[in-house]
Amino acid sequence: MIDPWGSEDVKEEKLMNEFGIEKFSGFSGKIPDNLLMRRGIIFGQMDFGKIADCIKNRKKFVMMTGLMPSGAFHLGHKIVADQIIYYQKLGAKIYLCVADVEAYNMRLASLEKLRRIAIEEYLTNYIALGLRPKNCDFYFQSNRSSSSAKANAYYRLISMIPKKVTLNELKAIYGDLSPGKIISVMHQVSDILHSQLKEFEDKGPVVVPVGIDQAPHLRLTRDVAARFSQAKEFDFILPSSTYHKFMKGLRGGKMSSSDPTSFIALTDGPKTAREKIIKHAFSGGRDTVEEHREKGGVPEVDISYQMLYYMFEPDDKKIKKIYEDYKSGKILTGELKQILTEKIAKFLIEHKEKREKARDKVHEFIS
Amino acid sequence: MIDPWGSEDVKEEKLMNEFGIEKFSGFSGKIPDNLLMRRGIIFGQMDFGKIADCIKNRKKFVMMTGLMPSGAFHLGHKIVADQIIYYQKLGAKIYLCVADVEAYNMRLASLEKLRRIAIEEYLTNYIALGLRPKNCDFYFQSNRSSSSAKANAYYRLISMIPKKVTLNELKAIYGDLSPGKIISVMHQVSDILHSQLKEFEDKGPVVVPVGIDQAPHLRLTRDVAARFSQAKEFDFILPSSTYHKFMKGLRGGKMSSSDPTSFIALTDGPKTAREKIIKHAFSGGRDTVEEHREKGGVPEVDISYQMLYYMFEPDDKKIKKIYEDYKSGKILTGELKQILTEKIAKFLIEHKEKREKARDKVHEFIS
Repeated sequence: MIDPWGSEDVKEEKLMNEFGIEKFSGFSGKIPDNLLMRRGIIFGQMDFGKIADCIKNRKKFVMMTGLMPSGAFHLGHKIVADQIIYYQKLGAKIYLCVADVEAYNMRLASLEKLRRIAIEEYLTNYIALGLRPKNCDFYFQSNRSSSSAKANAYYRLISMIPKKVTLNELKAIYGDLSPGKIISVMHQVSDILHSQLKEFEDKGPVVVPVGIDQAPHLRLTRDVAARFSQAKEFDFILPSSTYHKFMKGLRGGKMSSSDPTSFIALTDGPKTAREKIIKHAFSGGRDTVEEHREKGGVPEVDISYQMLYYMFEPDDKKIKKIYEDYKSGKILTGELKQILTEKIAKFLIEHKEKREKARDKVHEFIS
Repeated sequence: MIDPWGSEDVKEEKLMNEFGIEKFSGFSGKIPDNLLMRRGIIFGQMDFGKIADCIKNRKKFVMMTGLMPSGAFHLGHKIVADQIIYYQKLGAKIYLCVADVEAYNMRLASLEKLRRIAIEEYLTNYIALGLRPKNCDFYFQSNRSSSSAKANAYYRLISMIPKKVTLNELKAIYGDLSPGKIISVMHQVSDILHSQLKEFEDKGPVVVPVGIDQAPHLRLTRDVAARFSQAKEFDFILPSSTYHKFMKGLRGGKMSSSDPTSFIALTDGPKTAREKIIKHAFSGGRDTVEEHREKGGVPEVDISYQMLYYMFEPDDKKIKKIYEDYKSGKILTGELKQILTEKIAKFLIEHKEKREKARDKVHEFIS
């Protein structure tokens, strides 16, 4: 049993087998370059062939994802943001859902406050990172659409989903159930499936990029979709999904919105970011300079290296050289951190400017 | 534990005490004449004072009720219909909800079929009985409104209710829970409360006429309303309710839509109705004419007498005379059934004509 709301570590391989997730090999010349795919950060997929085909043949498809409007927007969130923007550039219609009903039922805040956080913290950062209003349906679970036909259709689907699942099935996936969790699950399933309703985009492929902890939820959603199709109530294509690794927190544990020393926020200044990296970033370096020169560092567990690998050194040759130089002991932890610090400082300064401009564009996303 | 979807008999007095339901004394010259109130068929109430005050002072209030679109519209349903039309004439805004989401999740039919039944069988009969489009909000749970602001507000309320209840609380009221039951309960609570949202009528009194089996549900709804008010999320007046007796089925058990020999449908012809009464209507008469003349009948258990009392003999003096003559043995079962048969025949013939005309008015209720 995996709790998608929990924080337990999950064993990727075992889960891939259990849920029939295949290795991601979508990047094979067929679809445009993407750092996350090329470097194995996106490592698994289910039914991605349909999506690769759409990209190759310039056919319509939807990329759906959600955001939980809680706390600061940090580098961990950027991995999903990068994928959204990547798919949007490839022509996907983006469905970007603010999971405010879910957050409300988890007692995170009032709907009003959640709305404010979603716009000021999340949407603004997405725009600054490159999200465009065209082909982007940004919406709140609590306020689906300014079209009544769409709103009714979305909520109607939610209220039909309970017929397709049993309480035991939900318990097996989500553990202890509260009424709030149950309605959250119904919303999430509808969020993934509703783009295929005739009131929205009609039947068509959808890809959902998630962490491996969401695998049971994606399977449930596919089961529900299949049951609707079987009952001839809807004709859904089973949703595709990709699975990415999470960026670890600075100290090596989970990157958590509730612990500011675990993440670098996109609103952190370069100085704060530098201090966090120097003070907290878990190092794969040795205890002494002598030992480091002799044995070399361990980039595999080094958080600074990880950050460069995940996003801040996009040049494959350069990241390879950093890896080798660190591994051989040629560069020290302090030097590695310096490379990262400079990259992050540059990014944060530019991003801040972009975010200021993004504020004026928010209204283009909210009808 | 009472299952509002079940059919178990409930002990009125005990429940009235348990749920704080008071005797209905709304009819006391303060509000206009009504057969169901006058004769104690509506026997209990909670917070009805607010509604009596609105009626007396011609203030705005809402009367909310739902219909389950399953099977034929029969005399049992007419008790609620009579109340709807009574309140509408008194100036109430009527909220008439088709519980199609609930019916769908109970696996009664597809939403399309449920919609057809609701319109052709239920709405048409309501109109024929006197329902008018003015001040009537007839809606489907699956398609709340053609205004997106209203639709979003209604469904938003549904998705906020889970935060206000626990699974144990729901179990205590509804017994074994399925996801479908849970979502049905959320819909029902929202159905009763949502007229008070600013997108609808805004804060104001609401009365819900129900059978005693719904008492636990009304209490839950009041609890949820109070919790929303306490959290300052909404400012709800606790809903008022009245409690009516059910008309028994022809053979004395439950009047059930799934058993045509238990009810007289409003689409039954006079001949069918007559046959059903003669063949099935449980009689309080004696075994022989001699015995009946000597000991008299038992109107208290006689279904034909009950039907006259509940709706077909509105004249109090005449019903009293029928009671006395039957009790004294002056009239026989056959004669009692003859009185009822003639009244029902007249009603059904007139009603059929009205229903034909009603079909043309259906569109005035559905936007």
